[in-house]
Amino acid sequence: MTGESTFTIDPWGIGEHGLDLSGQARAESLFALSNGHIGLRGNLDEGEPHGLPGTYLNGVFELRPLPYAEGGYGYPESGQSVINVTNGKIIRLLVDDEPFDLRYGELRSHQRSLDFRDGLLRREAEWTSPAGRTVKVVSARLVSLTQRAIAAIDYRVSAVDGPVRIVVQSELVANEQLPTGAADPRAAAVLEAPLVSEAHQAGGTKAVLVHQTRYSELRVAAGMDHAVEGSDGFDAVAESSENQGRITVTTVLKPGEELRLVKYIAYGWSATRSLPAVRDQVEAALTAARYTGWDGLVAEQRKYLAEFWKTSDIRIEGDVELQQAVRFAMFHVLQAGARSEERAIPAKGLTGPGYDGHSFWDTEAFVLPVLTYCLPGAVKQALRWRHGTLPMARDRAAQLGLAGAVFPWRTIHGEECSGYWPAGTAAFHIGADIAAAVARYVRATADVEFEREYGLELLVETARMWRSLGHHDAAGRFRIEGVTGPDEYSAVADNNVFTNLMAQTNLRDAAEAATRHQQESAALGVDTEEAAAWRDAATAMYIPYDEKLGVHPQADGFTDHQAWDFDATPPENYPLLLHYPYFDLYRKQVVKQADLVLAMQLRGDAFTDEQKARNFAYYERLTVRDSSLSACTQAVIAAEVGQLELAYDYTAEAALMDLHDLGGNTSDGLHMASLAGACIALVQGFGGLRDHSGHLFFRPRLPSGLARLSFSMLVRESLLHLEISHARTTYSVLRGGPLRLLHEGEELVIAPGEPVSRPMAVVEPVERCAQPPGREPARRKTQAGVQIGSGAVEHLQAE
Amino acid sequence: MTGESTFTIDPWGIGEHGLDLSGQARAESLFALSNGHIGLRGNLDEGEPHGLPGTYLNGVFELRPLPYAEGGYGYPESGQSVINVTNGKIIRLLVDDEPFDLRYGELRSHQRSLDFRDGLLRREAEWTSPAGRTVKVVSARLVSLTQRAIAAIDYRVSAVDGPVRIVVQSELVANEQLPTGAADPRAAAVLEAPLVSEAHQAGGTKAVLVHQTRYSELRVAAGMDHAVEGSDGFDAVAESSENQGRITVTTVLKPGEELRLVKYIAYGWSATRSLPAVRDQVEAALTAARYTGWDGLVAEQRKYLAEFWKTSDIRIEGDVELQQAVRFAMFHVLQAGARSEERAIPAKGLTGPGYDGHSFWDTEAFVLPVLTYCLPGAVKQALRWRHGTLPMARDRAAQLGLAGAVFPWRTIHGEECSGYWPAGTAAFHIGADIAAAVARYVRATADVEFEREYGLELLVETARMWRSLGHHDAAGRFRIEGVTGPDEYSAVADNNVFTNLMAQTNLRDAAEAATRHQQESAALGVDTEEAAAWRDAATAMYIPYDEKLGVHPQADGFTDHQAWDFDATPPENYPLLLHYPYFDLYRKQVVKQADLVLAMQLRGDAFTDEQKARNFAYYERLTVRDSSLSACTQAVIAAEVGQLELAYDYTAEAALMDLHDLGGNTSDGLHMASLAGACIALVQGFGGLRDHSGHLFFRPRLPSGLARLSFSMLVRESLLHLEISHARTTYSVLRGGPLRLLHEGEELVIAPGEPVSRPMAVVEPVERCAQPPGREPARRKTQAGVQIGSGAVEHLQAE
Repeated sequence: MTGESTFTIDPWGIGEHGLDLSGQARAESLFALSNGHIGLRGNLDEGEPHGLPGTYLNGVFELRPLPYAEGGYGYPESGQSVINVTNGKIIRLLVDDEPFDLRYGELRSHQRSLDFRDGLLRREAEWTSPAGRTVKVVSARLVSLTQRAIAAIDYRVSAVDGPVRIVVQSELVANEQLPTGAADPRAAAVLEAPLVSEAHQAGGTKAVLVHQTRYSELRVAAGMDHAVEGSDGFDAVAESSENQGRITVTTVLKPGEELRLVKYIAYGWSATRSLPAVRDQVEAALTAARYTGWDGLVAEQRKYLAEFWKTSDIRIEGDVELQQAVRFAMFHVLQAGARSEERAIPAKGLTGPGYDGHSFWDTEAFVLPVLTYCLPGAVKQALRWRHGTLPMARDRAAQLGLAGAVFPWRTIHGEECSGYWPAGTAAFHIGADIAAAVARYVRATADVEFEREYGLELLVETARMWRSLGHHDAAGRFRIEGVTGPDEYSAVADNNVFTNLMAQTNLRDAAEAATRHQQESAALGVDTEEAAAWRDAATAMYIPYDEKLGVHPQADGFTDHQAWDFDATPPENYPLLLHYPYFDLYRKQVVKQADLVLAMQLRGDAFTDEQKARNFAYYERLTVRDSSLSACTQAVIAAEVGQLELAYDYTAEAALMDLHDLGGNTSDGLHMASLAGACIALVQGFGGLRDHSGHLFFRPRLPSGLARLSFSMLVRESLLHLEISHARTTYSVLRGGPLRLLHEGEELVIAPGEPVSRPMAVVEPVERCAQPPGREPARRKTQAGVQIGSGAVEHLQAE
Repeated sequence: MTGESTFTIDPWGIGEHGLDLSGQARAESLFALSNGHIGLRGNLDEGEPHGLPGTYLNGVFELRPLPYAEGGYGYPESGQSVINVTNGKIIRLLVDDEPFDLRYGELRSHQRSLDFRDGLLRREAEWTSPAGRTVKVVSARLVSLTQRAIAAIDYRVSAVDGPVRIVVQSELVANEQLPTGAADPRAAAVLEAPLVSEAHQAGGTKAVLVHQTRYSELRVAAGMDHAVEGSDGFDAVAESSENQGRITVTTVLKPGEELRLVKYIAYGWSATRSLPAVRDQVEAALTAARYTGWDGLVAEQRKYLAEFWKTSDIRIEGDVELQQAVRFAMFHVLQAGARSEERAIPAKGLTGPGYDGHSFWDTEAFVLPVLTYCLPGAVKQALRWRHGTLPMARDRAAQLGLAGAVFPWRTIHGEECSGYWPAGTAAFHIGADIAAAVARYVRATADVEFEREYGLELLVETARMWRSLGHHDAAGRFRIEGVTGPDEYSAVADNNVFTNLMAQTNLRDAAEAATRHQQESAALGVDTEEAAAWRDAATAMYIPYDEKLGVHPQADGFTDHQAWDFDATPPENYPLLLHYPYFDLYRKQVVKQADLVLAMQLRGDAFTDEQKARNFAYYERLTVRDSSLSACTQAVIAAEVGQLELAYDYTAEAALMDLHDLGGNTSDGLHMASLAGACIALVQGFGGLRDHSGHLFFRPRLPSGLARLSFSMLVRESLLHLEISHARTTYSVLRGGPLRLLHEGEELVIAPGEPVSRPMAVVEPVERCAQPPGREPARRKTQAGVQIGSGAVEHLQAE
């Protein structure tokens, strides 16, 4: 059975038949469970074989030195890496003294499935040991969305063909050996065994291990407790040592008999609390979980998700594969953000160690725009995390000679961890991305209290940064120079259009918020002169434009640069950054990811329709999408300029990034921003949503491959619902008060129970833009959405 | 006596009275002896106390890893560091069993002097041991300019106040312990004991040690032999071990009696030759040196230097301090280049470990222009070294996706060792600097054979690089983008004027050389189309100009950048790079070192006189001279635009960089380019020499502080001499055939024995330009050149 596996296409889950050991790491990412606080990769219950074992706690990292061949003032000296904490999901099984290991004996059947409606990862395996004894293992795993510190496993083993002696070892394992791979041997050394034992105890069916990280000094406690049911009695023994806790259960099963073990796992960590406090917190969580019981936890999970899908589901007719992908995307975005609670949402969520577990602008620019309209509480928590890092961001600004706050390009805890400043510190736009997320959240929720207590300060400190970073030239234009925009194939350029437009919004939003909250802004030292200086800078903001070509250069001089020689670039030389030096990429017209095109999405008001079409066509020819943060943006603007089939292809690429492993690195963890981007592509691309001003604006369009698109949005506690077909769009308010919106420029007021329909606008067919040779959007294996997977609806559990 | 020292001002040497232990490292650099192959820092004979022990062999380095926090394609993985090789200059002395150590007992007198006419470092010390016995030590040291592998020490010790038992231990010491300081512990570990013993032997008065470097695998042999003379007989014992060779000489001296020991030291190294071959080479050199004898070596040295000064002396009347400084400068430039012979001339020569012993563009842009007219053979050797690195430079170009050759920004062996590409690899101008040095050498010497065999290929491969690095824009202009010019406070900019003008010359010179050597250029694959493409690119070269300001921007957009806030920059924040991040420096108008101003020196033909004056004034306000490679260039252009007193101040700053330790880092080694720059400031500044076209052009000017300036130049085997006073300039040819030159635009033909005089041009007084506050040229302690040191002419040896 091992050696191959097939994934099913199911609108409400992903299923795997068989087991492909070479693709294990990828499957572990796809099957990862998380609540934003705890993350468990989809490793097999028995621990091995594995692609990459992974158990993560949001915010638990180790420090490591950042080395430089030639250092410089302001270079961060210390990096932060997410660590694999104590693994609590291991349940080893001995069958007549032979380990249940799928690499040996005969695997008769193996199926796994992840259900988006109950959040359970289920597994069924039938296996014959090398000695010829057959057992069946059925397990289900969850990371609780309702009990933040808790994960649980329902593990059942039954004898199939004869009496069999069963030994189950349920474990906590700290400092697991990881596959090596770090390029810097010093960094690898630091991360090899990051946990130093502080305490361990075991008794009954329970064990707890407490460790501390060596350099970052974070205290981590992991505990487990068990409920065991056997047909015919069993023995249980508890043991613990520095890096291991173990409960061993032994029994003999006759054919058809089953041993069932429910494992409750709890985690707690703290940088400040004492050992007893953290240990007690874990034991209390275990007690609560045991009290709730497995069925109770499953019921809570199901209820939580039902409510989530009510506000968040995006339904598609005509493309089952895309339907599955977008729900997969929403499910994982939920898992990343649900309970992170004043911690960062990392670029990979808690699904793998990619990017060292760091958070980037991805969160504010891609993930939060989705969560804003379906799980606004998570957005508030994520922005409160940013707010909590303001002291570090102010220190960084001071170090860089700037006013206000400079947020880190990449971090776990809040300090800048980027070791290459032209593509790190110089990407100042992250400040405006955060400010935009604040403004969007406040507009969507009318959460005045948040704005007053947290949002205002974020807006003020970022506006101060922009005012000190830019300057007025002799002609009175406000210029921002020597910065890096989203496109990482350019760096340290002058007047990046995206950056300047986002800074403009940031400055204006800060001035407006200061006006709304005069007492609080005065407490932050803002006076009317300062707010006026922000408004002036915003008004005078310089936006370069190439009159000869009739397009916006991405930054000053960009359109004068030499064109990249795409014809001389063989397919195996992508991604370019692994085959060409930065110096060559930076000085030529080649774009890694949407930059000017993203500016047109987020600041559509700054461009005419004709400029949008010309700019889009110009940058399509240059954009290679070596970043996963591009297809969704290109989808949105392709749809806006009327290239609906191209938009459809980009949407699918964004949505299938991980399911089809298009970047080849899903094994390191899922691309949260691309997953969120798939939702953005649908809602902003085909739904035509724009939310950069005070009101929601829709301009729905559908590609031929989609028969129908519907989605809901939480707006100021009302639930707006859109039903888009090729004939018409119907707006309804499913709960809450009436909502005002703009449809194709027409103002509509949608009252509860009174849906409003408008016919689909007639769109002139537009010639499809060309991409660099070989860099067209990834095509799906079978053509045209409707056929894909329509007969393949299949699910492990009938529901 | 220790604790203070004074340096004498002497036109032909530097003398030191007393001994300042805290300033020892600086004095060791000033007193360093070298022939370009062997370099000995001016450490005390007895080895300790020292500032920084140093013995260097040109080309002997160790490899060390270059670490990156975030790596990138094309980043060099391995660095090269000069190493302290086997120290052969140690002669320890025991006085009645107490070590002669100046930190203990009483130092009654201590004097050292370096004489530029015989190249000897002399020392006299009278010391009373803690037990009360007084001895006198008189030593002299040389590194032979005629016998390349040889250094020698004449060491004499005599009893002053009573019979004394003397033990002299003359040593070879490998893997000396060095003061720590390397920031990267891994690099420090690699360099801690870089030599692995291969063989050692001792017998009679001779010892030889052979080692190999651990990673770079270079074989290094060091040997010593001795001639001993004692009044009353002596014993000598020879010993050796892995890291030590020792000859011990014992005697008893009565008052007035002397023990004299002449130590001959020889070095050899090779990357390819066998152990016996390298050892034999060293022993042969020792035999030859003993045969020549101390007096013979001194006589050869004196003769070599007499010939050198005949062609190279720059005489100044009216400023003894500057006179001393410029001869100090010429002497050290000679020492760095004399016998380097197909090896690089490092930025610090062989005077210290600064910059890891690397060579930069300094060599071709500052050192070779001086040597071209006084020691052209050394220029030929230095350029043959560059030629020998062409295979590595071609590989580097291929790695970077360019044609031709990309020379390393910093290297010892030829591979790029720069770990920060924006200020390393991106400084492509080094290719044009090399090409300009080739063209200058060929023009000055008419060495057609060199041009054919070496120069042509250097010109062709650099021209190919420029042609592939640049591109034509839509308007037909040839642009070079994303490169870094000389000013390291800007980086990765478009159309740096210096770079574009130097590339223009490079392209033209290559095309012309290809025309002159058609057969050889065809063999290099150059056809008429390729040469035409070079000419076209040169003709179409884009030189940005700011019409509104009437100045040349250093690069595209520079004059639009925000002005650096000099008023808010306290004096202790210089050099700026240690107190401000690169991102801030790069995006603002602040200049580390002459860039556009250097372009005006090297490509004066590309600017009108009015542009020169305006540009100079503009950049003076922005230039902070945080580099030692700036004052000389500013001196030259200050003189050209008529600001003679400012030029005088800059000349003195360049000349006194090391003697007055203006950069605070003379302890790491001397600034060869600034020393050469002092000569350039005088010859090109006040002599008004320009040599960027086929003929020599002079426009002499003198500041009020100088009564007279005279210098000679070897031009096509003729010796041209200029005598410049405030009244007139007299040109004469001292040997060789007649020379044609331009004086203030007037063509003169100077025949041997027929001097030609022209009156000094009348210069309109020009207002002195302003510099950033606090960044005016370093003022000398006493004002006005004439007074300085005029009564201080003093010399340890009466001559």
